[in-house]
Amino acid sequence: MKILIIHGPNLNLLGTREADVYGTMTLDEINASLKKLAKELGAKLDISQSNHEGEIVELIQNARGHDAIVINPAAYTHTSVAIRDAIAAVEVPAVEIHLSNIYKREEFRHKSLISAVAHGQISGFGPEGYLLGLRAAVSIAHAKKGNS
Amino acid sequence: MKILIIHGPNLNLLGTREADVYGTMTLDEINASLKKLAKELGAKLDISQSNHEGEIVELIQNARGHDAIVINPAAYTHTSVAIRDAIAAVEVPAVEIHLSNIYKREEFRHKSLISAVAHGQISGFGPEGYLLGLRAAVSIAHAKKGNS
Amino acid sequence: MKILIIHGPNLNLLGTREADVYGTMTLDEINASLKKLAKELGAKLDISQSNHEGEIVELIQNARGHDAIVINPAAYTHTSVAIRDAIAAVEVPAVEIHLSNIYKREEFRHKSLISAVAHGQISGFGPEGYLLGLRAAVSIAHAKKGNS
Amino acid sequence: MKILIIHGPNLNLLGTREADVYGTMTLDEINASLKKLAKELGAKLDISQSNHEGEIVELIQNARGHDAIVINPAAYTHTSVAIRDAIAAVEVPAVEIHLSNIYKREEFRHKSLISAVAHGQISGFGPEGYLLGLRAAVSIAHAKKGNS
Amino acid sequence: MKILIIHGPNLNLLGTREADVYGTMTLDEINASLKKLAKELGAKLDISQSNHEGEIVELIQNARGHDAIVINPAAYTHTSVAIRDAIAAVEVPAVEIHLSNIYKREEFRHKSLISAVAHGQISGFGPEGYLLGLRAAVSIAHAKKGNS
Amino acid sequence: MKILIIHGPNLNLLGTREADVYGTMTLDEINASLKKLAKELGAKLDISQSNHEGEIVELIQNARGHDAIVINPAAYTHTSVAIRDAIAAVEVPAVEIHLSNIYKREEFRHKSLISAVAHGQISGFGPEGYLLGLRAAVSIAHAKKGNS
Amino acid sequence: MKILIIHGPNLNLLGTREADVYGTMTLDEINASLKKLAKELGAKLDISQSNHEGEIVELIQNARGHDAIVINPAAYTHTSVAIRDAIAAVEVPAVEIHLSNIYKREEFRHKSLISAVAHGQISGFGPEGYLLGLRAAVSIAHAKKGNS
Amino acid sequence: MKILIIHGPNLNLLGTREADVYGTMTLDEINASLKKLAKELGAKLDISQSNHEGEIVELIQNARGHDAIVINPAAYTHTSVAIRDAIAAVEVPAVEIHLSNIYKREEFRHKSLISAVAHGQISGFGPEGYLLGLRAAVSIAHAKKGNS
Amino acid sequence: MKILIIHGPNLNLLGTREADVYGTMTLDEINASLKKLAKELGAKLDISQSNHEGEIVELIQNARGHDAIVINPAAYTHTSVAIRDAIAAVEVPAVEIHLSNIYKREEFRHKSLISAVAHGQISGFGPEGYLLGLRAAVSIAHAKKGNS
Amino acid sequence: MKILIIHGPNLNLLGTREADVYGTMTLDEINASLKKLAKELGAKLDISQSNHEGEIVELIQNARGHDAIVINPAAYTHTSVAIRDAIAAVEVPAVEIHLSNIYKREEFRHKSLISAVAHGQISGFGPEGYLLGLRAAVSIAHAKKGNS
Amino acid sequence: MKILIIHGPNLNLLGTREADVYGTMTLDEINASLKKLAKELGAKLDISQSNHEGEIVELIQNARGHDAIVINPAAYTHTSVAIRDAIAAVEVPAVEIHLSNIYKREEFRHKSLISAVAHGQISGFGPEGYLLGLRAAVSIAHAKKGNS
Amino acid sequence: MKILIIHGPNLNLLGTREADVYGTMTLDEINASLKKLAKELGAKLDISQSNHEGEIVELIQNARGHDAIVINPAAYTHTSVAIRDAIAAVEVPAVEIHLSNIYKREEFRHKSLISAVAHGQISGFGPEGYLLGLRAAVSIAHAKKGNS
Repeated sequence: MKILIIHGPNLNLLGTREADVYGTMTLDEINASLKKLAKELGAKLDISQSNHEGEIVELIQNARGHDAIVINPAAYTHTSVAIRDAIAAVEVPAVEIHLSNIYKREEFRHKSLISAVAHGQISGFGPEGYLLGLRAAVSIAHAKKGNS
Repeated sequence: MKILIIHGPNLNLLGTREADVYGTMTLDEINASLKKLAKELGAKLDISQSNHEGEIVELIQNARGHDAIVINPAAYTHTSVAIRDAIAAVEVPAVEIHLSNIYKREEFRHKSLISAVAHGQISGFGPEGYLLGLRAAVSIAHAKKGNS
Repeated sequence: MKILIIHGPNLNLLGTREADVYGTMTLDEINASLKKLAKELGAKLDISQSNHEGEIVELIQNARGHDAIVINPAAYTHTSVAIRDAIAAVEVPAVEIHLSNIYKREEFRHKSLISAVAHGQISGFGPEGYLLGLRAAVSIAHAKKGNS
Repeated sequence: MKILIIHGPNLNLLGTREADVYGTMTLDEINASLKKLAKELGAKLDISQSNHEGEIVELIQNARGHDAIVINPAAYTHTSVAIRDAIAAVEVPAVEIHLSNIYKREEFRHKSLISAVAHGQISGFGPEGYLLGLRAAVSIAHAKKGNS
Repeated sequence: MKILIIHGPNLNLLGTREADVYGTMTLDEINASLKKLAKELGAKLDISQSNHEGEIVELIQNARGHDAIVINPAAYTHTSVAIRDAIAAVEVPAVEIHLSNIYKREEFRHKSLISAVAHGQISGFGPEGYLLGLRAAVSIAHAKKGNS
Repeated sequence: MKILIIHGPNLNLLGTREADVYGTMTLDEINASLKKLAKELGAKLDISQSNHEGEIVELIQNARGHDAIVINPAAYTHTSVAIRDAIAAVEVPAVEIHLSNIYKREEFRHKSLISAVAHGQISGFGPEGYLLGLRAAVSIAHAKKGNS
Repeated sequence: MKILIIHGPNLNLLGTREADVYGTMTLDEINASLKKLAKELGAKLDISQSNHEGEIVELIQNARGHDAIVINPAAYTHTSVAIRDAIAAVEVPAVEIHLSNIYKREEFRHKSLISAVAHGQISGFGPEGYLLGLRAAVSIAHAKKGNS
Repeated sequence: MKILIIHGPNLNLLGTREADVYGTMTLDEINASLKKLAKELGAKLDISQSNHEGEIVELIQNARGHDAIVINPAAYTHTSVAIRDAIAAVEVPAVEIHLSNIYKREEFRHKSLISAVAHGQISGFGPEGYLLGLRAAVSIAHAKKGNS
Repeated sequence: MKILIIHGPNLNLLGTREADVYGTMTLDEINASLKKLAKELGAKLDISQSNHEGEIVELIQNARGHDAIVINPAAYTHTSVAIRDAIAAVEVPAVEIHLSNIYKREEFRHKSLISAVAHGQISGFGPEGYLLGLRAAVSIAHAKKGNS
Repeated sequence: MKILIIHGPNLNLLGTREADVYGTMTLDEINASLKKLAKELGAKLDISQSNHEGEIVELIQNARGHDAIVINPAAYTHTSVAIRDAIAAVEVPAVEIHLSNIYKREEFRHKSLISAVAHGQISGFGPEGYLLGLRAAVSIAHAKKGNS
Repeated sequence: MKILIIHGPNLNLLGTREADVYGTMTLDEINASLKKLAKELGAKLDISQSNHEGEIVELIQNARGHDAIVINPAAYTHTSVAIRDAIAAVEVPAVEIHLSNIYKREEFRHKSLISAVAHGQISGFGPEGYLLGLRAAVSIAHAKKGNS
Repeated sequence: MKILIIHGPNLNLLGTREADVYGTMTLDEINASLKKLAKELGAKLDISQSNHEGEIVELIQNARGHDAIVINPAAYTHTSVAIRDAIAAVEVPAVEIHLSNIYKREEFRHKSLISAVAHGQISGFGPEGYLLGLRAAVSIAHAKKGNS
């Protein structure tokens, strides 16, 4: 089982910026905890971070060999139809993650362009959200394999 | 550790209605799987279902002895300020669950009155969402205890 | 043939309040005229009135043995997703009735949350509307039986 | 007792188009069933169909000798202030009919310009809706005569 | 000097309907008073009434020999882009008249599709408004002739 | 003179929750101060609290023997057409009270469904608001009696 | 017969500013033409101009001895509830004038706060509009005197 | 204890205009009743009325020596950011009063620019509202003194 | 292969009005160029122009013998549900044409009621647009024949 | 004559994804058919595809040597002001293409940021749309050359 | 070179109110720093402050002898069409200043009625903003002189 | 003191495109004038231009060694949450510049996603705006250093 993890724009700064909103854990630490859990769950991870909308589109286009995607689209959540279309195009189920509870923040963050093409969303649990998302992705992938 | 599970209106029909939207698992089966996971995580569950907004308000008011709430407000998600106020009033962190991906459904289901007072949301993973929610709740409760 | 009649909130006051809007006929008189027509049409009626959203949800959940529902959701027409979901969940066709012409009244009454899950609506004919609704319900039920 | 029946634009195609939305009954068959019921109820019918807004305005202007109007404004429901003004101008009560449940269709069909000047509306019952509408019209006309 | 007077839909009923809104003067009486004033002002009038949008479009298309148009578009004020386009197409200045004060009536009557292509508007003065409109039209036509 | 006092949902928690928003006075203490003032003003009070919309509807329906209602609809202020209709149905004047200044809070709290059927509103004065409301209610009741 | 003429803010600049929008006639010239017409019509004029909302409110409050008001509220058309309330308070009919066609200009100029309390509006005819407005005012005043 | 009373635009006409909306009591009579109550409550009043937004701004700026303000901003309620800013600038608590129930009137009167900076609002009780407002102001001033 | 060409309201004026918006080519010249291209493509054309919504509805209803429709609905693009319903009713694919780029014009022209039932749209290419539309229509008709 | 063809994001997947929406033709096949037609029309093509907004901006900036642009901005249609500004900046006419009928899809796809700066749009004809677009581009370029 | 400086409502309180929003510098200190810079730049200043909309209108009307205006319209930014019209009427370029960053404050402060007629805006730099504004004004005035 | 200057998309075309909107000065000339002023003010500049949203995000992420940022986000002003988040993440104050007065242009340009996280904005002064922005940036940086 192969899961693709995509971290969106500005997440490379995690742990070093606005700790009150995003916590003190760095992206490397999150990735380490993801890998640890993946091992437990018998999954392999491919992990990328990008600040470029076009690169994220292409990461998703190349997800076809994977069983599921876990993606935190960050700022592009609210502005990218291109990422939405890429997810809709590849037939790999995607789990949408947000570190912060986007419904407690500015009005424009309440609307996700991604949600309607994602399998499900997890929002507000900080780094723990990635672990929940990985569990969800593995579970969906198992169900899909079971069905086919 | 004590977790309160609240199932909102019409969830007593689960498994017997609209299987294409909500799946074939009954509420009893979901509760059984929740209890099994709770045991693994070392938590005790109090589980209720109600079709009455006022009753759900009072279930939440009585949550004060609990470490966290996992709530699927169902239809009341979109219409109940009273449930929102109850969650804000008790100081117990709440995890909001939705079986279906509410962002793929009617426009009016995209707006939750609960999200802004919940700790986080999990939407679209079917019964698996409850299990993720329970994990999240236990994790938040541990963190809170660690802090105090 | 069994038809469930549900009268929503404040309809217990009929005939005793705002006669200019709702007329002078009491709920008992309406129920009597419904029963008389039911007899002519060869249908049995179960009739309830409730001021509680949760109770109406449960009346609908228990409608499964019936061939059709005639419901005047009154104030809950505009605010209850729970009643909408209950109607969608049970597979019994529902006829939505309003005594007054809701399109001549306040803006917020122009929008019904129920209409999209009802079979059809009848609005503005006063108590006569219930009789039309009962005829419609019987006709739908006959058609359904004819099809199966 | 004389009742004017007005069928709006494209209803001349009934039974021959989009059977899934509008059913298989032709306009002639509907008119036949209306005449049969009218006979039972002791009413005479004048029946017209027009695809022209201005013609429908004039049909209504000429309704003054009638006791009631049963009108299915079809597409003009959502766009014609002229038909609305004509109904308001003649003092003959109008019953508004829609074959399909307009609240299950496109957003722009949820708003009727006619409803606020009609006596009442009946929507979603297919051809049966015309029969209910005729009953309603006769009942209103009787009530009016009783009052004068 | 030739002025074209156009009366829109339902104005043929003037004086015979809703006297509280539109007054008791008939269209013939208004036309008579217009002709009398025209004579004083040295203008000839062509006067038409139509309930058909298409006919009004064509009346305007044929206005090219006239010095000005005085038009009461009535219900089509709020719904007809075709009449707007016709006025914009012919290069004859148009004066828009409304008998009633449209800003005291329903919200949808506050918006005129015609105003932005009319030379000016006169609203709320009853039949007197036509006389003011005729004076305005004659004055505009004189100014235009003076300029050329 | 008899005044009905109705406390809406979550007000049973007063003094024990969110003290920064709602103050430290309990509902019992507020009721005691209301009774003391009532005595001074020569009025008798019936006091109820409910978290159930339907119960509040019925409390109001039973208000007919009273001279006025003082109601803090709390969360139902923004969502309950049923309570609005109940107030409109009984012919007892109602004074609407809010502890907090609802115009300093979330956007959705700025809109009250109750205000248009209440006699007047008092908002933002904390428990003092109830005393002002009681004075207002007594004054309205006196005026009404004086008129009849 | 006494008519009060009120010119709103910035109209003292007429003829000296933005000649393409407002023409080249000065306010003095407009006033002279108004006085000439008033003489013909047998009316006396009181004429004021003010850039101050409060002063215009007081000019209107003092209009009680007059038979009608002709007012060009200019910029305050779109922002002054105080002027609206003053017009509603005195029982003197008001004619609202605009030099330019406000419906050809910025969106915010399409909405007048004054229109709903004015007797009628005249917009887009330049200085001629004042003369039409004076005629309208005299006609309304005559009608009122005739009625009383 | 010193309280500043500010009456906004058109309130100088009270008792002489629109008696059905505003009652028959004059401003002098209201002021007399306010003074009488102030005496009972041990407070001194400074009372002003102005039709000028700028003057009201300056009255508020000069309120610094007072313990509280009771203000009926009337028409400026809905249009004046300047008055809002003045109240926010001086650190004297303000009580907002409206004679009529603004939520029963035109849509634009439902929104107050003042409420978010006022301590609280009282609306719909007629002249009695001023007395309630004075009591509220005195009570707030006492509480503030008690705190300092 | 038979193609129906429909020109909407005011297009009879083409080449004679507003040349800056619509160009200098007359409708006859456009029709001639269409016929020439049709010959090349092996198609026969039926060409109509109408200023009447109802007539256009009936032209479309009678399109059933044709392989495709090329329609420029002009002003009715933005206001006619009746034309939309007619296109949806006949099962002939329709190509929607606009001479001008409607997205560079007034806001209300950006919304087409026709687009959602048309096969495709071509906008902004002037008379050339009709030729492109004819090519598109022929291509669709060929594809359809190929499929059947 | 040189034409620049730009394919936007995710179009590299054509023929391999969502065949029901976008058809089975690959981008290479489309490009081949474009080249074939270009040859017939005597034009040379430069063809690019990019998933990156910034790259597309630069492709357009470099279009200055070309006679026209044919662009399918795909997802960036609805979100890119940068592409809009680039088209406005270079003075090369642009033809906007969409494979699917964007007016039959999600609401957010109905609004194009590009249309107002494009020469014209072609939407809904699948790969055929590119051929029509190329014809349009060549025609515009010829007209421009003819004019200069 | 003569520059007119206009300070809007409540700015006379600067340095004495809400120091966290507006800083501690008084208006006199700001004026002193403006004069100092003006001297350096070879400009003369006329400086006024007013709380009255009408006075500010007249200050602007009298600006005709000046080379530029620097104006902080404060609260009137969001509500005054009269000030907007005055700026548009005089042909003196205006620089709009705001001390605070209005885009970080309440929604209604994000919209300026003045911006569309100002030459440019400077917002969020505190008293420094006036100095930047004066530099901008002098620069614009120089450019204008250079052009003429 | 080090200041980072960022020029957004399409600004590389300055002086060569749309001279009526953006002037005739090239980006190199602007940069030269910025360097000259920087020297006077004792600041060093790092200057970049990019058409890529992701690159601008990374330029900002790398701004941490700088004392301030001067950024003209151009088209990304209205569409980029990623740039907004990058500015919020690094703790370097940002000055937002626009060459044109964005409030005189299309509606969608009136809303900046950047303003709420910028220190201040300068809009409408052409290339001069950069110089004002640099002065502002230096002044903010001095103040910050003074505070620390």
